[in-house]
Amino acid sequence: MAEPIPIIGATGALGWGLAMRLTVAGQPVVIGSRSAERAQEAAGRVREVAPDAKVEGLVNDEAAQRGPIVFLTVPFRAQSENLNNLRDVLQPEQILVDCTVPTAAAVGGKATRTLGVWQGSAAQQAQEMVPDGVTVVGALHTLSAKTLGEPDAQLGEDILVCGDRKADKARVARIIELIPGLRAVNAGALETARIVEQITSLLISVNARYKTHAGIRVTGLGEEDHWG
Amino acid sequence: MAEPIPIIGATGALGWGLAMRLTVAGQPVVIGSRSAERAQEAAGRVREVAPDAKVEGLVNDEAAQRGPIVFLTVPFRAQSENLNNLRDVLQPEQILVDCTVPTAAAVGGKATRTLGVWQGSAAQQAQEMVPDGVTVVGALHTLSAKTLGEPDAQLGEDILVCGDRKADKARVARIIELIPGLRAVNAGALETARIVEQITSLLISVNARYKTHAGIRVTGLGEEDHWG
Repeated sequence: MAEPIPIIGATGALGWGLAMRLTVAGQPVVIGSRSAERAQEAAGRVREVAPDAKVEGLVNDEAAQRGPIVFLTVPFRAQSENLNNLRDVLQPEQILVDCTVPTAAAVGGKATRTLGVWQGSAAQQAQEMVPDGVTVVGALHTLSAKTLGEPDAQLGEDILVCGDRKADKARVARIIELIPGLRAVNAGALETARIVEQITSLLISVNARYKTHAGIRVTGLGEEDHWG
Repeated sequence: MAEPIPIIGATGALGWGLAMRLTVAGQPVVIGSRSAERAQEAAGRVREVAPDAKVEGLVNDEAAQRGPIVFLTVPFRAQSENLNNLRDVLQPEQILVDCTVPTAAAVGGKATRTLGVWQGSAAQQAQEMVPDGVTVVGALHTLSAKTLGEPDAQLGEDILVCGDRKADKARVARIIELIPGLRAVNAGALETARIVEQITSLLISVNARYKTHAGIRVTGLGEEDHWG
């Protein structure tokens, strides 16, 4: 049986959508939240969609110990606090998939603008904060939480995956591609998250103008599996 | 008859490809270069593709006076010099379409990395440098010059168009969409060029990894014409 996938902050829209989609795909998931009660409530909502879902709800630090690949889906303003709380929890060889986006909304500004992060990107900030031996991969930034969270909504877009070790990115890619309609694209080193995280703000701007939930697709990649 | 489209720096790959594609689409084009001789040589190469092409080659400052919408397709390291040279040439009501991308290659670094531009983006630097009354629109950053320059290569991607006046963006969009396979997407205000220009570096990184000439497509926009 596949190892569970912990999702920290999965009471939020992106994390919950990810939890729901992965359980529908047959994957066991552990929903993390600051509150065990809210985590269990979110797990209950997943079971309403998928009655056979292998899902449970735990507080974040317990959730993060339940699987080798941990998704972090909290808002940027909560990223540092969450990583501080996970400092004694995350273990070498674990992969942290950072999905946070430093939009200016974190400080009351516009979500169509981004903040400068000292390390270059939220993902690089995460890499600085995790314990030695934990590697950070950036992903899911451009995915609409709303579309992801609607069980019947069809996805058809790419996820740009950033990280310094291809093998780690490939493991994350395999999880992402369990969700029908998502293709994981190797976007380069972790520092490329500087660019990818900003595309979220671009899409938020496009969404307002086109009244949609836009995503990104990279053209010209061909049909082969580049992760093999 | 349609007004000619001046392309400053059209002896370079992107500008030449644009000139060739637009003349093939029946549009008159004026190729600009620092050297009249090289401009005429580039125009000759367009005529080899499209014998009936309405194309001529002039020095940049003469070219820039030949039509209301001027494309600037020079490398970033030459952008300021070119805009200085056009300061007494460009007239109010003209639109300058800035296509430059501030990759670190401009200072001998990697094209997969970008430079910080004081004004926020190359397009905003251009807006600061053009005469009053000239508006800048940013576009074409994510288009592969190589694919564009191959007459038989099929395009199928989006062009993210940034600018502060929708009417100006719409005029540029109409030109872009003369080229089969290109869709112009309203990406927001000129400041959004901060994000769009960086996507070029992301795609250059993807190109190296996937051995391709990638482009970008925004998903979820529907089929309607949003420029009307």
